[in-house]
Amino acid sequence: MATQALRKYDAVNFTDVAITGAFWRERLDTVLKHTIPSQYEKLVEFDMIKSLEVRQPPPPLTIPKNNHNFTTQIFWDSDIGKWIEAASYALRHGPDKKIEQKIDEITELLAKAQRPDGYLNCWYIGREIDKRWSNLRDNHELYNAGHLLEGAIAYFQATGKRKLLDVMERYIDHIANTFGPGDVQKHGYPGHQEIEIALMKLYRLTGDKRRLDLCTYFINERGKQPHYYDAEAQARGDDPKKYWHKTYEYAQAHKPVREQTKVVGHAVRAFYMYTAMADLAAELGDKALKKACETLWRDAVQTKMYVTAGFGPSAFNEGFTTDYDLPNDTAYAETCATVAMIFWAQRMLNLDLDGQYADIMELGLFNGGLSGLSRDGTTYFYENKLESDGSHTRWAWHNCPCCTMNVSRLVASIGGYFYSVGDRTIAVHLYGGAQANIKLGASSVKLTETSNYPWDGKIKIKIDPDAESKFVLKLRIPAWSHGKTKAKVNGKAINTKTNMAKGYLEIDRKWNAGDVVTLDIPMPPRRIYANPAVKADVGKVALARGPLVYCIEQVDNAKTPVSNLFLPQKAKVTVEKKQKLLGGTVVLKASARTLSRKQWEGALYLDLPPVELPATLTAIPYYQWANRGKNPMRVWINEKQ
Amino acid sequence: MATQALRKYDAVNFTDVAITGAFWRERLDTVLKHTIPSQYEKLVEFDMIKSLEVRQPPPPLTIPKNNHNFTTQIFWDSDIGKWIEAASYALRHGPDKKIEQKIDEITELLAKAQRPDGYLNCWYIGREIDKRWSNLRDNHELYNAGHLLEGAIAYFQATGKRKLLDVMERYIDHIANTFGPGDVQKHGYPGHQEIEIALMKLYRLTGDKRRLDLCTYFINERGKQPHYYDAEAQARGDDPKKYWHKTYEYAQAHKPVREQTKVVGHAVRAFYMYTAMADLAAELGDKALKKACETLWRDAVQTKMYVTAGFGPSAFNEGFTTDYDLPNDTAYAETCATVAMIFWAQRMLNLDLDGQYADIMELGLFNGGLSGLSRDGTTYFYENKLESDGSHTRWAWHNCPCCTMNVSRLVASIGGYFYSVGDRTIAVHLYGGAQANIKLGASSVKLTETSNYPWDGKIKIKIDPDAESKFVLKLRIPAWSHGKTKAKVNGKAINTKTNMAKGYLEIDRKWNAGDVVTLDIPMPPRRIYANPAVKADVGKVALARGPLVYCIEQVDNAKTPVSNLFLPQKAKVTVEKKQKLLGGTVVLKASARTLSRKQWEGALYLDLPPVELPATLTAIPYYQWANRGKNPMRVWINEKQ
Repeated sequence: MATQALRKYDAVNFTDVAITGAFWRERLDTVLKHTIPSQYEKLVEFDMIKSLEVRQPPPPLTIPKNNHNFTTQIFWDSDIGKWIEAASYALRHGPDKKIEQKIDEITELLAKAQRPDGYLNCWYIGREIDKRWSNLRDNHELYNAGHLLEGAIAYFQATGKRKLLDVMERYIDHIANTFGPGDVQKHGYPGHQEIEIALMKLYRLTGDKRRLDLCTYFINERGKQPHYYDAEAQARGDDPKKYWHKTYEYAQAHKPVREQTKVVGHAVRAFYMYTAMADLAAELGDKALKKACETLWRDAVQTKMYVTAGFGPSAFNEGFTTDYDLPNDTAYAETCATVAMIFWAQRMLNLDLDGQYADIMELGLFNGGLSGLSRDGTTYFYENKLESDGSHTRWAWHNCPCCTMNVSRLVASIGGYFYSVGDRTIAVHLYGGAQANIKLGASSVKLTETSNYPWDGKIKIKIDPDAESKFVLKLRIPAWSHGKTKAKVNGKAINTKTNMAKGYLEIDRKWNAGDVVTLDIPMPPRRIYANPAVKADVGKVALARGPLVYCIEQVDNAKTPVSNLFLPQKAKVTVEKKQKLLGGTVVLKASARTLSRKQWEGALYLDLPPVELPATLTAIPYYQWANRGKNPMRVWINEKQ
Repeated sequence: MATQALRKYDAVNFTDVAITGAFWRERLDTVLKHTIPSQYEKLVEFDMIKSLEVRQPPPPLTIPKNNHNFTTQIFWDSDIGKWIEAASYALRHGPDKKIEQKIDEITELLAKAQRPDGYLNCWYIGREIDKRWSNLRDNHELYNAGHLLEGAIAYFQATGKRKLLDVMERYIDHIANTFGPGDVQKHGYPGHQEIEIALMKLYRLTGDKRRLDLCTYFINERGKQPHYYDAEAQARGDDPKKYWHKTYEYAQAHKPVREQTKVVGHAVRAFYMYTAMADLAAELGDKALKKACETLWRDAVQTKMYVTAGFGPSAFNEGFTTDYDLPNDTAYAETCATVAMIFWAQRMLNLDLDGQYADIMELGLFNGGLSGLSRDGTTYFYENKLESDGSHTRWAWHNCPCCTMNVSRLVASIGGYFYSVGDRTIAVHLYGGAQANIKLGASSVKLTETSNYPWDGKIKIKIDPDAESKFVLKLRIPAWSHGKTKAKVNGKAINTKTNMAKGYLEIDRKWNAGDVVTLDIPMPPRRIYANPAVKADVGKVALARGPLVYCIEQVDNAKTPVSNLFLPQKAKVTVEKKQKLLGGTVVLKASARTLSRKQWEGALYLDLPPVELPATLTAIPYYQWANRGKNPMRVWINEKQ
């Protein structure tokens, strides 16, 4: 499996993992039953499927151009590709002729649209074919190709049907002819990274080294001087300086990737690129690339991450600003950015089984990622704010529906984030009820994990190798448990201090069918504080329990505005199970204080402090907010002593 | 003077008031010596004077059109008008042949540009004369006319030269012919209110009732249905719905002005309109208009005012959003809005001598207005934020330099805000060292006020009527003194409780030359709290002393970021005079707390609260900030118990 020194682990594919636990089963069923079908309806309703029918003269734009003379309709191929990917994952959970038929229809449209030379971008073919490959910086051709390719791979894997994959392989051949170091080739690379991830998948699927080479080229060429974006702008008669994002940091193309040490620009572009970099580093054994990934990771999680694993505070560039700039009410924290971070974390785990990566992966999954999807699975957040005055709410669709299908493809393949396998090692990253069949060298091991995680930290793992087998079972112990986790093997306690390595409990022994490991991860309510450099969170506290970050939503705190609630530093926070609330949840409660408005009748400012009153604070898991109408909400709660 | 029942007071003109106190003398001298001359240099440097030379073909735009296909160059006539007004006020302080020559030159350019029918808008004459009066909603023709008229009036009053006034009267005649109730007239009114204020001044100067009628027409026609902005959009072939500000609230044209009860839209438009409404209500004896003004005033100061008397939180509409929405770091709080509020407050005082108006007038003067001008008088704030990370700083000029000349015309006529006179009453609103010659009926009264206000609350007023005279002297007692002011007449204490009426101490007696009134307004440091409905200020406190609101600027608090400073609720705040700091100031100091960053090395979130350390907090008057380089600053300070 690991072909090079740096590739130490592989994720176990979601097709080898059955989700049995209540938490993920509910989200997965919702996505399979409601989200993916309703997304197809939206693709039809918004003429996105129709946009693949390349007609002359082209029909009017469905989404008008904006102030930057730009329409997001140009990205639609990618949304189609992402839906195919999610729908193909759904097919792995159970056959569905209707979905297959829809993907086959889309395949026919794409095959018909494809140019004889293999080129396949429906926007350019239908509207301005003479301009193709003239503006990689802004126009997302390679990004679209990447998502279509991921869709084609997933569909082939689900059904064995090759047609879409063949179409896409021809397109990739065309791209490989167009871009590269040759004199007649363009020395370009994507404006929006993504295809690099897809090329790695294609390489792993087919073993065709040209795919790896193309990915390597795109990664290595990026940010070199003289700058390709300058050259292509001049070639099309534009002034490179008239670039509305002003700097190439926006697309992480400001310097070669191995020299990049700070996380900058558009968050999704950044994290897709880092994902591909980590994948490539593992594949090529490229230590410099691995080191760049590690440096960028530290920068991301130590200076630029919301407590929910949201990323990118600014709507302006959909991305990063300065270190510690993490405003709550104006947070952008795009769902796609957290999903991309989860991809990146998973690739980092292939390089290095370090709990810091799995911790963030889990944080993103349960919080900033999952918050993007409503309880009923049909409405979405693009921006995952950490504070809202109630005006911010979920939408049914979006001009740029990238986030919708990023959530559905993530949840539809959630089992793929639970386990990794390496030389004589099985690693368990996530808990919540799952059954996995894992190939370990010549043998096969069945793992049956039973728990009510994330609501409860009591976990039981049954190990059933097909024959007695000596290997290391590595169990991730969340950093938030602060070393208080207890573990037993077949009822016998094991030392969770001495057997820890980088956040994983290592159990190296001969395993026999029926062996049982239990973990008891304590889940008291936690108070989280931000580094004082985060201005927005000074004097505030966030609540969490287990991997779930909590928030106070107005509907649960009817008597006082959530903005006026103060949680005393010593107040006891209690845990209450609520089976009927939000389809089953665990709330946190505390005696708190609020501010009286009595003396303020008609006054805006007084020389007297507001009078305090007792109040009760009720918090729910962040991912569950905004499912009960428009409501003010905040993650960071005022604290008092 | 007061021609109607509602017009009870008139402001004493600044030409009858000599500023002698240190505070305003310094600001006034700076404006006269540095600001007004440097502003003329900027008008030349940015080709604004040249824009009055109407040439064919028109020269290229100096300021390109923006995303809304709009250039602020279209407002330049107004900036010229405002500079003429400020420069003319300067001439009242002392002759200056150079300035006169410049205004005469501008007059020649304007006279030359004026069309035979009286029309005078240099943008339209030079670029699209066929489109004149086709878009009142967006294109500011009447606004420009208003400012040019105010300039012309001021120049006539300063020099007796009539030419510019004649030009402008011809233009006003043209406007009066163009707009009105007649069948062939347009039933329009300004998109940006301003000319209404100017017309009231012209009416008072010339007694020509047509000017009052035109102002009345503009005020009364506003917001009627069918809507003029719809009609004019249709007439020019535009869809009225394609209006980038979406609603006519933006220009307070959503309903007739007497029906308006909430302060909405663009802040400067709103306050210019309310100024004219109050003026007109006084002049016409229009009780409904007066009532509308009072309702709007309450809404403004009770729900939409920053503690600095800044107004308009949002950059998007340069104006208002929802009640209590007063964010500090993104505050727009345009200098012009506070200046406009000062104008409005002064007109309200003509209707009703109520200290609430003078209190806000003073608050704006010393804080949100004065902060717009740098210490050296040559750089400016357009936005007067209440919190900055240090990136926000003053600029030397602006594409839309409206604020620059609003500050200079305000400060150059500052004496005009000190006193009002009514039937047998002289009212003193402001203190700070001034000598006034006031006509009261047949007699004349010299008032000599000596104090070091706002640094000190000890005030001495010498009253010298030309002959023994019985009248009421009304002395404003600031609400922030909480009834603790002491007063004496010729050394004899008078009761400041029983003699108070609406915030003014009334002394009704026979006055003789040499009579002396003293006030002792205590000035302990004050802690100000915001209504808990103001989310941005929950858990925070502002400091003030006298009329000055304070802020903490990083340069005075070098040891800890101002965002990490906490002021304990019981901490004693002390007063320190600093003769050498910022040209002389009074700072406030307190023992405070800050957050240690020791344990946070490499950590963004921890389950432990930050450790507190002792710190010293130093605050300076808000208007003095941003005079020592780029610096983080905040008005609202974290408070702890």
